[in-house]
Amino acid sequence: MTQGGGAGPNSDAGFAEENLSLNDFLGGRVQLWQPREGYRAGVDPVLLAAAMPARAGERVLELGCGGGQALLCLGERVPGLELTGVELQPDYAALARRNAAHNGQTVEVIEADLAALPKDLRQRQFDHVLANPPYYRAGAHSPAEDLGRQIALGGDTPLQIWVETAARRLTYKGYLHMIQRADRLPEILTACQGRLGSIEVLPLAPRQGRPAELVLLRARKGGRADFRLHAPLILHQGARHLADVESYQPEVREILREGAALCWPATR
Amino acid sequence: MTQGGGAGPNSDAGFAEENLSLNDFLGGRVQLWQPREGYRAGVDPVLLAAAMPARAGERVLELGCGGGQALLCLGERVPGLELTGVELQPDYAALARRNAAHNGQTVEVIEADLAALPKDLRQRQFDHVLANPPYYRAGAHSPAEDLGRQIALGGDTPLQIWVETAARRLTYKGYLHMIQRADRLPEILTACQGRLGSIEVLPLAPRQGRPAELVLLRARKGGRADFRLHAPLILHQGARHLADVESYQPEVREILREGAALCWPATR
Repeated sequence: MTQGGGAGPNSDAGFAEENLSLNDFLGGRVQLWQPREGYRAGVDPVLLAAAMPARAGERVLELGCGGGQALLCLGERVPGLELTGVELQPDYAALARRNAAHNGQTVEVIEADLAALPKDLRQRQFDHVLANPPYYRAGAHSPAEDLGRQIALGGDTPLQIWVETAARRLTYKGYLHMIQRADRLPEILTACQGRLGSIEVLPLAPRQGRPAELVLLRARKGGRADFRLHAPLILHQGARHLADVESYQPEVREILREGAALCWPATR
Repeated sequence: MTQGGGAGPNSDAGFAEENLSLNDFLGGRVQLWQPREGYRAGVDPVLLAAAMPARAGERVLELGCGGGQALLCLGERVPGLELTGVELQPDYAALARRNAAHNGQTVEVIEADLAALPKDLRQRQFDHVLANPPYYRAGAHSPAEDLGRQIALGGDTPLQIWVETAARRLTYKGYLHMIQRADRLPEILTACQGRLGSIEVLPLAPRQGRPAELVLLRARKGGRADFRLHAPLILHQGARHLADVESYQPEVREILREGAALCWPATR
């Protein structure tokens, strides 16, 4: 198959063409090649990218960038950023490069383990770090048949390492943004203690009155403001799911389909 | 003044009569003497007591019981409990004894620092521990004019010590319930790591769409269930406060005025 263009410099590596599909994000403003069988991005990296107050000229590092979904959605909304992604798996790193080229964006993709970053990266600082770490603890879930999907869903790097690595790479007053399962919030908050402050948590609830399944977390290096637990962002309208009807709240639909920013509730 | 009865065994100690007032809780089912100028209980200990799934015959320990508000509200809703309170300040310990007697309840009140419990208490185990720790870090607030109020509002025992002490006194599968400012949730969750599990957090939001100012937290010794962040319990109806109109949601009013239990959202 030769559908689409923008094969990156490492296109020899990576997924076989027939195992990829091209998917629309942000209403088609971003198009991403994704493995048909491996880890496929949903709305989570899109919400993560929308939640960042990045401005042109700032340096952005994503830990575990996968196929580049979050970085490329961010780059579409905020032109002029310096985007860097770290990805452990060569196939996904190659995919991120290809996706950047396909969307006419420049992303530096570094193949590395975030727990052991190469020296030159350890000497650099970033205004923003973002991460959408695997949602399951290694060993705590049924093994996925696909190894790449398995690592993406349940990597064995503890969340503490993600937070520590992010904190070390941030400039003073730089922001970390993460999206993660709500049930892992205690681990993240514990990891932030003494490293990052001004923490804000925005629970993402599927519907009004339902518990949050995911949380967006924002923290700042050197931040000293009190922890804030915001009212949940409700993703869907109505009390239950109606088949085949897209039910996102208008604010959420604007983020997902029109590339709008996610507005954090104002701090007092 | 000799209004009211039930002076406890230590009624020599404590507040001067003219500095006390008698207040209704649970729609008058519980009446509590409180200092006019010192720490006065609001709805928080009432919500805390309502949140506990205690059953007759179980042993209950409150850390920092103050004038006994939470214990006596709990004892009113669930007869047959063995109630014990630890209170650092002699005046408040005396008040708790007096309030117990005034309400015809039996409460063992132990005057002690929760960070250094007496040996006999350290040899006992409880099915439930509850605590409504001071809401401000020592030194982080303007000093209150009244020393007792100052200690009650901003004691200098770190939240970690509250959680550690609670965990040590709990039986296997015993419950800790705490109410605390939402901005101190990271400290509590960090303190729970490795000591208590099956943590559930119920944010208490003043109104729909507003951030939680307080959280109710439940954890179990030996609990292994995932952390749960519930949808907020909304305390008041309407979008803003109307002067002199009691606006509690019906569910909350039943807790505060009729002594109903607070129903935690079902876990999946």
